Amino acid sequence: LERDKYENNEVAGVVTGLAWTSVGGDILFIESILSKGKGAMTITGNLGQVMKESATIAMEYIKSNAELLGINPEIFEKYNVHIHVPEGATPKDGPSAGITMLTSLVSLFTQKRVKKSLAMTGEITLRGKVLPVGGIKEKILAAKRARIKEIILSEENRKDVEEIKAEYLKGLTFHYVKEMGEVIELAVTKQSVKNAKKL
Amino acid sequence: LERDKYENNEVAGVVTGLAWTSVGGDILFIESILSKGKGAMTITGNLGQVMKESATIAMEYIKSNAELLGINPEIFEKYNVHIHVPEGATPKDGPSAGITMLTSLVSLFTQKRVKKSLAMTGEITLRGKVLPVGGIKEKILAAKRARIKEIILSEENRKDVEEIKAEYLKGLTFHYVKEMGEVIELAVTKQSVKNAKKL
Amino acid sequence: LERDKYENNEVAGVVTGLAWTSVGGDILFIESILSKGKGAMTITGNLGQVMKESATIAMEYIKSNAELLGINPEIFEKYNVHIHVPEGATPKDGPSAGITMLTSLVSLFTQKRVKKSLAMTGEITLRGKVLPVGGIKEKILAAKRARIKEIILSEENRKDVEEIKAEYLKGLTFHYVKEMGEVIELAVTKQSVKNAKKL
Amino acid sequence: LERDKYENNEVAGVVTGLAWTSVGGDILFIESILSKGKGAMTITGNLGQVMKESATIAMEYIKSNAELLGINPEIFEKYNVHIHVPEGATPKDGPSAGITMLTSLVSLFTQKRVKKSLAMTGEITLRGKVLPVGGIKEKILAAKRARIKEIILSEENRKDVEEIKAEYLKGLTFHYVKEMGEVIELAVTKQSVKNAKKL
Amino acid sequence: LERDKYENNEVAGVVTGLAWTSVGGDILFIESILSKGKGAMTITGNLGQVMKESATIAMEYIKSNAELLGINPEIFEKYNVHIHVPEGATPKDGPSAGITMLTSLVSLFTQKRVKKSLAMTGEITLRGKVLPVGGIKEKILAAKRARIKEIILSEENRKDVEEIKAEYLKGLTFHYVKEMGEVIELAVTKQSVKNAKKL
Amino acid sequence: LERDKYENNEVAGVVTGLAWTSVGGDILFIESILSKGKGAMTITGNLGQVMKESATIAMEYIKSNAELLGINPEIFEKYNVHIHVPEGATPKDGPSAGITMLTSLVSLFTQKRVKKSLAMTGEITLRGKVLPVGGIKEKILAAKRARIKEIILSEENRKDVEEIKAEYLKGLTFHYVKEMGEVIELAVTKQSVKNAKKL
Ligand SMILES: [Ca+2]
Ligand SMILES: [Ca+2]
Ligand SMILES: [Ca+2]
Ligand SMILES: [Ca+2]
Ligand SMILES: [Ca+2]
Ligand SMILES: [Ca+2]
Ligand SMILES: [Ca+2]
Ligand SMILES: [Ca+2]
Ligand SMILES: [Ca+2]
Ligand SMILES: [Ca+2]
Ligand SMILES: [Ca+2]
Ligand SMILES: [Ca+2]
Repeated sequence: LERDKYENNEVAGVVTGLAWTSVGGDILFIESILSKGKGAMTITGNLGQVMKESATIAMEYIKSNAELLGINPEIFEKYNVHIHVPEGATPKDGPSAGITMLTSLVSLFTQKRVKKSLAMTGEITLRGKVLPVGGIKEKILAAKRARIKEIILSEENRKDVEEIKAEYLKGLTFHYVKEMGEVIELAVTKQSVKNAKKL
Repeated sequence: LERDKYENNEVAGVVTGLAWTSVGGDILFIESILSKGKGAMTITGNLGQVMKESATIAMEYIKSNAELLGINPEIFEKYNVHIHVPEGATPKDGPSAGITMLTSLVSLFTQKRVKKSLAMTGEITLRGKVLPVGGIKEKILAAKRARIKEIILSEENRKDVEEIKAEYLKGLTFHYVKEMGEVIELAVTKQSVKNAKKL
Repeated sequence: LERDKYENNEVAGVVTGLAWTSVGGDILFIESILSKGKGAMTITGNLGQVMKESATIAMEYIKSNAELLGINPEIFEKYNVHIHVPEGATPKDGPSAGITMLTSLVSLFTQKRVKKSLAMTGEITLRGKVLPVGGIKEKILAAKRARIKEIILSEENRKDVEEIKAEYLKGLTFHYVKEMGEVIELAVTKQSVKNAKKL
Repeated sequence: LERDKYENNEVAGVVTGLAWTSVGGDILFIESILSKGKGAMTITGNLGQVMKESATIAMEYIKSNAELLGINPEIFEKYNVHIHVPEGATPKDGPSAGITMLTSLVSLFTQKRVKKSLAMTGEITLRGKVLPVGGIKEKILAAKRARIKEIILSEENRKDVEEIKAEYLKGLTFHYVKEMGEVIELAVTKQSVKNAKKL
Repeated sequence: LERDKYENNEVAGVVTGLAWTSVGGDILFIESILSKGKGAMTITGNLGQVMKESATIAMEYIKSNAELLGINPEIFEKYNVHIHVPEGATPKDGPSAGITMLTSLVSLFTQKRVKKSLAMTGEITLRGKVLPVGGIKEKILAAKRARIKEIILSEENRKDVEEIKAEYLKGLTFHYVKEMGEVIELAVTKQSVKNAKKL
Repeated sequence: LERDKYENNEVAGVVTGLAWTSVGGDILFIESILSKGKGAMTITGNLGQVMKESATIAMEYIKSNAELLGINPEIFEKYNVHIHVPEGATPKDGPSAGITMLTSLVSLFTQKRVKKSLAMTGEITLRGKVLPVGGIKEKILAAKRARIKEIILSEENRKDVEEIKAEYLKGLTFHYVKEMGEVIELAVTKQSVKNAKKL
C-alpha cells in the first residue's frame, strides 16, 4: 500500500516500527498523546495482550528511571497517556514493538523530535536490555519499501542481518543495541517538536 | 429501508457516517450527548471492540488538542459523554466511523451545527491523519440513496472513487482530506445549534 | 398465560411493553424504582447486552434533557435507579423496549402515573427519534389478548399495521410517533401516583 | 438426604425455600448476615446470574420501600449484607427463590423470627407482585419430606396445587399471595430472634 | 509424596484440611496471613469459584460474629487478609474446605495455635451449621498416611465413617460436629503462636 | 540461544530462575522495579494465572514479614511495583518461579545485590515453606548451559538431583532449603546495588 511509507517527525510521540505478519513485513506507527488527567494510561489499536503489556513495561520503565531520562516525575500524575497503533482493522500482537513504544513515550514526555527516517524493532525488559525479535528479513524489506534510512535492532539480531544478501541492505544503516538507553540516545533528538507542550 | 436517509442538522453531536456490511453499503448516525458528571464516557449501539476504540481515540485526540479546537478543557471534567450508534439490533465494528465520531464530539463540545447533507467515512489516528477505509463504492451508493450531497474521504481513498462510473457519482461532491483538522473545518459550521447548551 | 394481561397504573415506573419471541408475541413489564444513593443504575431481568444498552440510552437521554422534561437534575445524584424486566426465567434482548424504558424512567423521576391500558414498542436514539422495530403483527395480537386499548409505535411501523386485517385491530387505538417527546406526552399523565415520593 | 428437613427459626435471615432440579424437588435455605460496612452486598452459593439478580431485586425493593417495611434506611449504609445459599457443590439458578430472599432480608434487617415450619417459592418483581414458578408438584413433595407445615405460593400457582392428589397435600396449609407485602406479613413474625442485633 | 504429612502448628493461620481428588484422598494446607491495609481479602492457590466462595463465607461469618469469637471488629479494617492453598499446580474446588478456612481465619485473627495433629473437612454456612461432604473414606486414608491423629467431620458424615473397616480407623479420633462454634472450640487452642502479632 | 546465559547482578530486582517447558529446560529472568505510587502491583510477561498468583503470594509474604526482613512497611504504600518476566512471546505458567519472585522483591525493597551466578526454582507458601517442583534434570542442564554456578532447590527436590549422573552436575553447587528465609539468606547479599534508590 502507498500508505506504508515513512512520515515526517514533527509530532511528539510518533515513531516508526517494523512488524512481521502472515503476509510479510510491514511498517507500523506508534502514536502517543497526553491529556490533562491523573496518570491513567489507555491503549488502542486492536492489540493483543502481549503488545499491551509492552506499553505497560515501557511506561513503568520510564517512571522508574525518570531522573536518568530527564523527566520530571510529577508529569506522570498530571496527565493521562493514550497510546495508539493504527490501523484498527488489523489485529496486532507480540513484544517486538517494545522499543518503539519506549521511544514514543520518551519523545512524548520530553516533547523532543524523533530522528528522521528511522525505524526500529525489539523487545524491552525492565532491567533495560533490548531483546532480539523475529522476522528480521521481512521487516527490513518493508523498511526499504517505506524509504526508511536507519534501523535500530538488538545486538542479538545482528546475525540475522548478516545472513541477508548485501543488495537488499543497500542504503540502510543499522544500529545494534544492547540497552534501552542506547535506543533513546539514537532515536530521540535534542530538538523540540513544533508547538511543543510545556509539561 | 425508507429510514436510511439523511436527516437535518439541528441537534449537536449528530453526524452521518457510511458503513459497509455484508449486505451492502448503508448510512449510519453517530449521536452524542452531554450530561452533568465527572468526565465518564459511555458507548452504546451493539459495537465491537475496534469501533469502541475509535470513540476513545476521538475523545483523547480532542482532549489533547482542546486549545486548537477552541474547547475549554474544563468542560471535560464537568460532563459525562454518551456516544450511541443506532440501530441496536445490528452489530457494528471496524475503524471507519472514526472521523464521524470525531466530528460528532467536536459538534457536541462546541454546540455547533454539522454541515447539511454531508456524510463521511475514515479512520482516525492520534497524530491527526485520516486513513483510508474499505467498501467505498458500496458506501457511495448508499449515500446517494440517502440523498447525501457531500462526502468526506481520506485522500488515500481518492483512487477508489476514480474507479467508479461517473454516472454513479452525479450530484455528489467529494472532499479528500489528509488531516483530521480538515474534516472539522469542512464538517462543523460556525452556527450554533438550536437551544445550544452553555457549557 | 393468564398472567400476560395489562395491569393497573398505580405504581410509578411500571410500563407495559410488547415483545416478540420465538414462540410469538408477548407483553412485558418494565419496572423501575428509586432508592437513596449516589446515582448508580442497576439492571436485572436476564437481559442481553443490547437491551441493557437501551436502559443506558434512556437514562442518559433523560439526564441530558432533564430541564425540558421538568426533572430537577440533582435527583440523579441523590438516588440509585434499579430497572427490572420480569420474568427472570426468560432471556430477553434487542432494542425494542427502548421507549418503554424511557417512559418508565420519566414516570419514576416525575412520580406521575402512566396512561391506562397502554402498551408500546420502539427503539430510542440519543437525538430523540423513535425507530421502528420488528414483529409488529405478533406484538399487536399479544396486546389484544392482554386487553390493551392503545399502542404507541414508530411512525415507520405504520405500514406494518396497515398490512394487518382490520378485524385483528378492532378495539385498538394506534399512536404513531417520530420523536421521544411525543411518547412521553402520550404516555405519562399529569396525575401523581398514589403515595408519590417527594424527590 | 436426612439433611433436607426444616430447621428451627432462631437465627435472623434464615428462610426455607423450595427448589426444583433435574432430580426432583428439594428444599433449600437462604441465609443472610450483616457485618459492619458501607452497604456492599455479596452473594455466594454457586448461583447463576438470574438467581443472583433475585438477590439484587429483593435488596433494591427493600431499600425503596424501607419506610413501609419499618426499616431505618440508614442501616443500609452502615452494614454489608452477605447472602448465601448452601450447598456449594450444587449449581443453582432461576428466579424462584425471590420471595425466599426477600423474606430472608426483611428478617435480617428487622431481626425478627421467620414463622416456624414454613417454606415458600415465587418470583419477585420491583412493583411488588409475586409471580408463579414451575415444578410445584415436585417442590410440594420435597416440602412434605422435610416436615414443612405451611407453604407460600403465588396466587397464579393455585391451579398447579389443585391438580395434585389430595393425599399428597395432607398436613400442608397453602397461602396464595399476589403481593410481596403479603409474603412478609405471613412469614416474618413480630418476635425478635434470640440475641437480636441492635441495628 | 513424602510432603503430604502433618506439619507443626507454630504459625497462626495454618490448618490441615482433607481433599478428595480424582486420584484419591490427600491432605492440604490452608494458610492465611495479615498485612497492614484496609480490609481487602485476596485468595490464591489455583482455586475454583466455589472454593473461593468458602473463603468469603468464612470471612463474613467471622465479621458478623466477631464479638462471640472474641475478635475486635476494628481489626478487619486495619489489615488485609491473604488466604492461600498450596500447591499451585493443582486446580482445587468445592465447598469442603469451609471449616478449614474458618479455623485458619480464627487462628489468624486471634493469633492462637491450632491444635496439633488435627485435620478437618466440612462445608460451612452463614447460620453456623457444618454440612457433610463427600470422599470421607479416601480422606481418612490420606489423613492416616500423613500421621494425623484427630479429624473433625460434620455429624452428618458419621454414617460414612461407620461404614469403614475398623482397622483403617485405628489411631484416629473423630469429632462429629453440628455447629461451626464446635469446630473452633475443638481446633483453636488458648495458646498464642510463637511471635504472635499484636493486632 | 546465545541469550540464555547468566547475566550480572548490578540491578536490583533481577534474579535468574529455571523453567521447564515442552522443549526442555531454560533459564528465565524475574525483573521488578519500583515507581512512585500508592502500592499498586502490575505483572507482565505473558503469564498464566498460577504464575501471577506466585507474585501475589511473594508480595503478601513480604508485607506480612516486613519487620523480619528489615523492610520499612511504609515503603509499600509509597511505591508501585512492576514485576516482569521476559520474553513476552512465550506463555509461562506454574508455581515454580515463586522463590525467584520472592528474591527479586526482597532485592528490590532492600536495594541489595543478588548473589552472582546463582539460579533457583521452587514454589512458595504463605507459611514460609519452600515446596518442590518438577523438571529438575532439565532445569539443571539449562543452568549449566547458562554458566550458572549455584542452584537453590527445595530440600524435597534433593532426591531428584541425586538421580542425575555426577558428570552433569560437575561445577554446580546445590543449596537445599526448607524455608523461604534460607533462600533470602543465600541469595540476597549485604551489598547495595549500583545507584541504589533511597526508599
Ligand atoms: Ca500496513
Ligand atoms: Ca516494532
Ligand atoms: Ca440501516
Ligand atoms: Ca463512517
Ligand atoms: Ca409472558
Ligand atoms: Ca417494548
Ligand atoms: Ca439438598
Ligand atoms: Ca424458593
Ligand atoms: Ca498433595
Ligand atoms: Ca477440607
Ligand atoms: Ca529462553
Ligand atoms: Ca524458577
